[in-house]
Amino acid sequence: MSGPYPAAVTAALAAQRIETPSWAYGNSGTRFKVFAQPGVPRTPEEKLDDAARVHEHTGVAPDVALHIPWDRCDDYGALASYARERGLRLGTVNSNVFQDDDYKLGSVTHPDAAVRRKALDHLLECVDIMDATGSRDLKLWFADGTNYPGQDDIRARQERLAEALATVRDRLGEGQRMLLEYKLFEPSFYTTDVPDWGTAYAHCLKLGPKARVVVDTGHHAPGTNIEFIVALLLREGKLGGFDFNSRFYADDDLMAGAADPFQLFRIMYEVVRGGGLESGAGVSFMLDQCHNIEPKIPAVIRSVMNVQEATAKALLVDTAALEGAQRSGDVLGANAVLMDAYDTDVRPLLAGVREACGLDPDPVGAYRRSGWAERIVEERKGGQQAGWGA
Amino acid sequence: MSGPYPAAVTAALAAQRIETPSWAYGNSGTRFKVFAQPGVPRTPEEKLDDAARVHEHTGVAPDVALHIPWDRCDDYGALASYARERGLRLGTVNSNVFQDDDYKLGSVTHPDAAVRRKALDHLLECVDIMDATGSRDLKLWFADGTNYPGQDDIRARQERLAEALATVRDRLGEGQRMLLEYKLFEPSFYTTDVPDWGTAYAHCLKLGPKARVVVDTGHHAPGTNIEFIVALLLREGKLGGFDFNSRFYADDDLMAGAADPFQLFRIMYEVVRGGGLESGAGVSFMLDQCHNIEPKIPAVIRSVMNVQEATAKALLVDTAALEGAQRSGDVLGANAVLMDAYDTDVRPLLAGVREACGLDPDPVGAYRRSGWAERIVEERKGGQQAGWGA
Amino acid sequence: MSGPYPAAVTAALAAQRIETPSWAYGNSGTRFKVFAQPGVPRTPEEKLDDAARVHEHTGVAPDVALHIPWDRCDDYGALASYARERGLRLGTVNSNVFQDDDYKLGSVTHPDAAVRRKALDHLLECVDIMDATGSRDLKLWFADGTNYPGQDDIRARQERLAEALATVRDRLGEGQRMLLEYKLFEPSFYTTDVPDWGTAYAHCLKLGPKARVVVDTGHHAPGTNIEFIVALLLREGKLGGFDFNSRFYADDDLMAGAADPFQLFRIMYEVVRGGGLESGAGVSFMLDQCHNIEPKIPAVIRSVMNVQEATAKALLVDTAALEGAQRSGDVLGANAVLMDAYDTDVRPLLAGVREACGLDPDPVGAYRRSGWAERIVEERKGGQQAGWGA
Amino acid sequence: MSGPYPAAVTAALAAQRIETPSWAYGNSGTRFKVFAQPGVPRTPEEKLDDAARVHEHTGVAPDVALHIPWDRCDDYGALASYARERGLRLGTVNSNVFQDDDYKLGSVTHPDAAVRRKALDHLLECVDIMDATGSRDLKLWFADGTNYPGQDDIRARQERLAEALATVRDRLGEGQRMLLEYKLFEPSFYTTDVPDWGTAYAHCLKLGPKARVVVDTGHHAPGTNIEFIVALLLREGKLGGFDFNSRFYADDDLMAGAADPFQLFRIMYEVVRGGGLESGAGVSFMLDQCHNIEPKIPAVIRSVMNVQEATAKALLVDTAALEGAQRSGDVLGANAVLMDAYDTDVRPLLAGVREACGLDPDPVGAYRRSGWAERIVEERKGGQQAGWGA
Repeated sequence: MSGPYPAAVTAALAAQRIETPSWAYGNSGTRFKVFAQPGVPRTPEEKLDDAARVHEHTGVAPDVALHIPWDRCDDYGALASYARERGLRLGTVNSNVFQDDDYKLGSVTHPDAAVRRKALDHLLECVDIMDATGSRDLKLWFADGTNYPGQDDIRARQERLAEALATVRDRLGEGQRMLLEYKLFEPSFYTTDVPDWGTAYAHCLKLGPKARVVVDTGHHAPGTNIEFIVALLLREGKLGGFDFNSRFYADDDLMAGAADPFQLFRIMYEVVRGGGLESGAGVSFMLDQCHNIEPKIPAVIRSVMNVQEATAKALLVDTAALEGAQRSGDVLGANAVLMDAYDTDVRPLLAGVREACGLDPDPVGAYRRSGWAERIVEERKGGQQAGWGA
Repeated sequence: MSGPYPAAVTAALAAQRIETPSWAYGNSGTRFKVFAQPGVPRTPEEKLDDAARVHEHTGVAPDVALHIPWDRCDDYGALASYARERGLRLGTVNSNVFQDDDYKLGSVTHPDAAVRRKALDHLLECVDIMDATGSRDLKLWFADGTNYPGQDDIRARQERLAEALATVRDRLGEGQRMLLEYKLFEPSFYTTDVPDWGTAYAHCLKLGPKARVVVDTGHHAPGTNIEFIVALLLREGKLGGFDFNSRFYADDDLMAGAADPFQLFRIMYEVVRGGGLESGAGVSFMLDQCHNIEPKIPAVIRSVMNVQEATAKALLVDTAALEGAQRSGDVLGANAVLMDAYDTDVRPLLAGVREACGLDPDPVGAYRRSGWAERIVEERKGGQQAGWGA
Repeated sequence: MSGPYPAAVTAALAAQRIETPSWAYGNSGTRFKVFAQPGVPRTPEEKLDDAARVHEHTGVAPDVALHIPWDRCDDYGALASYARERGLRLGTVNSNVFQDDDYKLGSVTHPDAAVRRKALDHLLECVDIMDATGSRDLKLWFADGTNYPGQDDIRARQERLAEALATVRDRLGEGQRMLLEYKLFEPSFYTTDVPDWGTAYAHCLKLGPKARVVVDTGHHAPGTNIEFIVALLLREGKLGGFDFNSRFYADDDLMAGAADPFQLFRIMYEVVRGGGLESGAGVSFMLDQCHNIEPKIPAVIRSVMNVQEATAKALLVDTAALEGAQRSGDVLGANAVLMDAYDTDVRPLLAGVREACGLDPDPVGAYRRSGWAERIVEERKGGQQAGWGA
Repeated sequence: MSGPYPAAVTAALAAQRIETPSWAYGNSGTRFKVFAQPGVPRTPEEKLDDAARVHEHTGVAPDVALHIPWDRCDDYGALASYARERGLRLGTVNSNVFQDDDYKLGSVTHPDAAVRRKALDHLLECVDIMDATGSRDLKLWFADGTNYPGQDDIRARQERLAEALATVRDRLGEGQRMLLEYKLFEPSFYTTDVPDWGTAYAHCLKLGPKARVVVDTGHHAPGTNIEFIVALLLREGKLGGFDFNSRFYADDDLMAGAADPFQLFRIMYEVVRGGGLESGAGVSFMLDQCHNIEPKIPAVIRSVMNVQEATAKALLVDTAALEGAQRSGDVLGANAVLMDAYDTDVRPLLAGVREACGLDPDPVGAYRRSGWAERIVEERKGGQQAGWGA
């Protein structure tokens, strides 16, 4: 398939928005070592400065997710203004109830009611912050779980979880949502209280329309068919969004599309198929990844581009031909229609979309040429670099 | 922990019932080879004869699951009488919509409405059989899925599935249930239409109280915490039963408890914890396994005993001590309470339970000494041995 | 990257040879069901007729692997002539020591010396056949292993295996080789006697220069980095060839490149990097797959094309740029060089290579238009269709 | 099976030695959080004080592995004396070439020769330390690898690795050994330079008799049969030892035997079967684990006991009965012999072994009653707690 491309395709690509996470711009690593990088932001504002570069060069990344307390500040309204002045919006608020010493055995599922209360208060504080920033979504990921059989009661922890979630739901304002994330394991190694989409879905169903499931592409057991889950959640009206990243084994921090670009394409195909790209579908496309050894800003740009390329290929699927082959049981024919889109080199198409928006067709190159990388190394000296702890 | 054991424990063990599958007594194998064994049954009646031996020596296996069409016969009432005369009951009816040429691309999810109708008719026929046999449960496992991306539409297949399931639900009589089984993969290799507990749960929820999920212990992705799923389904009132078997990698046919006896114990602990062992809980304990290289009857006996041993250990957990340790956050102490039960040698306890019921304390030995193995080899000559195809 | 392409690339693509397996043209399935297809060959000769169609339309598939006893015939010289007359050559001979009743507990590793001798005799017969067909390679895959802990002695089985392999090695003639295949599991479910590349390598090292490892892309544990193994075996001079196929979970029969085309590209990149594409490298590129639900001949054609596309992309990697980026520690830059080749649409390049060889640029279309599919359905009526059993 | 037990069994259990790692006594955690515990050692000497408690209560743990630089000190001779005075010996020296900023892209496989030289110098320094401490073994684990396809050249990294290993081998003194550890992934996420036993074995074979493979039980792909690897390495004379720990998913830090006690038993059975428990076999039994949420000293004691229990069960296998069943192809019988040993409650046997050695039969209880836990919380105030960074 080659151009010219349908106007609907280019329009959809120009309209897609991909949210970047503030923590992607800070230092990160593994339990073995955090390799600090020169030029890393020291403040939420500097993270926004870097996010603005990503948006400047890609044109599709105006939203920046916050992580509390890593992005805690005195005046969220001022932070929102700072963002707006740079063409950005403060996006999803991510809660963090896993880094305080009290949370060693859990947060909202902790056996001790006092710890649960503390964790819940943090979640409610996050909604306060949403009020101040104008954010729509609260993203909830819980590290809660156990390391050893018998350590705690699986069922009792579900009760505690359900209670906390209901309280948060009640606190949400008009137009606000809660997105519940699941993860197979880590940092809990025996049970995790929300380990799979089924658990997240069961809770969201009871919580009602303000609660939806978020799919982190790195959080599944080996062999899990993620696009199937996406299709199901869209069918149920319960897909709230994505945390994109990729992995080969068990980490969840490689650049989106880096490990299995064909999988990302299949996921985006189900999104398109299920109407998830349409405005009003309520599906957020977020990156959730860290850049341990590669420079952070160009890695975010590349990840945004990878999501765009997967989306472009998904939009190019000849759906009429596909449906025809499917209906007639033509296994090879149907597969060939899908692969024909995947095998297409969509880089020229996306270059054209960028040029039509007044952007450089080569975002990574434009960033490299901008001198920003050198400038932040020069200017950001001293202070405390941002990382997972701050 | 050593005897004397609490009366409640011995009573629960004496009361537990474990259903055996008729197909475990027939020939089976892998795609590479079916190794036929001498003495294998040729008819449903001969399968019941073998099942009667298992019950005779264990005292806990009066129920025998049927598989249609493998156990198809002219008069199910007569078959039920045949069973009753041997102290058995005809149990769960298992449908089979995967062995007809029409089902190459699916059964109830097939793109062709005529094939879907044929498959549905078979499911309804199974309910007719249940009426005749007095069986409570219809077990539904669908091989449906796809092998290649694009082959068929994931979402449309869910719609077709939901429609078929609703029709079956409407056909169920008073006291009858449908149990929906999930399986990660095989024989479908790209998508499976019911691949995980979440999908089965979502369907059962819509189907209402007559529909429940069945957990086959061999049907999960690597790293899945099965006891967690069991705890959740019990909490939701949606656990219909188990298909017990074990596996090291991806097959699902090794004897229950053979690959990971600690996992089986953890599962049974959650069953006990969630009230699943109580009469009225509506949880069936079925074996679903085949014996490709080992003699079939003693393998079934051994499997029944493995489930009993896991149950015994689960019942021996000192729940007061466990809850105390859990509440106080004593990680090592709580784990030690659980392990103390697991490390107990419960074979003397179960030998005592058997003797109290007038049974030989050593079921495998008793079977070996009975001469049945030699007798069936001698008597069952000629005819067509039962297998997956008949 | 776009054309014109380097002459070395087009020359390498025109020179590559991909061997197809005779059994891909016959019926196959899972343990649940073999769906027979109309028009399937009844004889080795008819399999060759079908293989000739694949070669006619792709130009790169003159070699056809045999499977003994599935392709057993009275006169292998005559079969070789039959092949030659159709532009084909009889290729690798695949032994089969897993389908006789004697092999229930193993073949060359069986505890009974008589069974071991029988299995060894079959392997030696396969070398006789190689003498008759002029085949270079004997491919050895053993289903041997155990299903239950304790069933047999792991170490004793290795001794028996080593002894059998040494005997076969001694029988090999000038220019003949033995290729040892490994497989994680199936049909053995607890231990497999050659489960991983390390085991195959250790044996081949002791067997000397006539023995090499064959990598079946579907035979690894989840998360295994196959291209790493390929790089290592090439470095050690011990890579004998590939059995290409793909899988999402645990089967090994989907079309090569269908499940993870990026992985196939990475594998082919390591082949190119390690000199494995060069004549004299002694690396065979074989398909080893079956087509359970899709038509067989076009599926083989598609698989051949998928291997070609992966090879083309691997050849297009800008190695000078890659090495420069690697040497300077430019993580993103090095990755981008590799991805630039992967993202290229190489279908026009391969179409050009085909046209330069006088072929239709669209092999699948040409096959469809040839009428062969309809003709074999019409002509091949009656008789016994070929499958795994015959 | 019940007592009295064979004298050979009790003697073997009394003679077994299990090495504990100095870092198990310090703080540790995941990338998300390190939960500091009160009473944690501040110095290598305090770690030895804690290790002495483990040895005091178990009687089998006199050896303590060091980790350089975490245990770096000015006078290793003095540290060895300190150990001796407490009934301990300084054991295996573990090198660390993953926590310096220079190692972001690798250590001995780094593209930059200067970084490789720095890493090699560290390894050689470790041998100097071995000379001072009298340690026999240098344990080499490399975090080296890549995160992204193309990032570096797989083959070139193998060349660099081989060169470094050869240099270390040449530096080893009489009676000194190098143990090469493999790990599937983490902290590298795409390739790891020593990912599996095959790679470690291939290197050790070339390095000669001073080099052996070490098996870390937590470092394998899902579904890997670890006892098979143990059997093979013992057969090849290349098993240097174990790093015991357990995991459910992908971490490698849970207490040995906690996740799959049956697997640990099977591993120990192969050790016994292959002569690995005999003095002179040269197999080290080390723990390599951290205790993120549980108190460290009793967790180490429990882990030591778990290894002892698995060993005791392995020693109780009726090998004559097992071999008889194996030889006759009695699948169920052979499995039953193995399971009979596993199902035995060996805690009384081990209690007897301890009492015969003048120890408390209940090591965890004895430790709890000793008051050490309270004492270190009281006394170890101020200073810098030991952890992975120091």
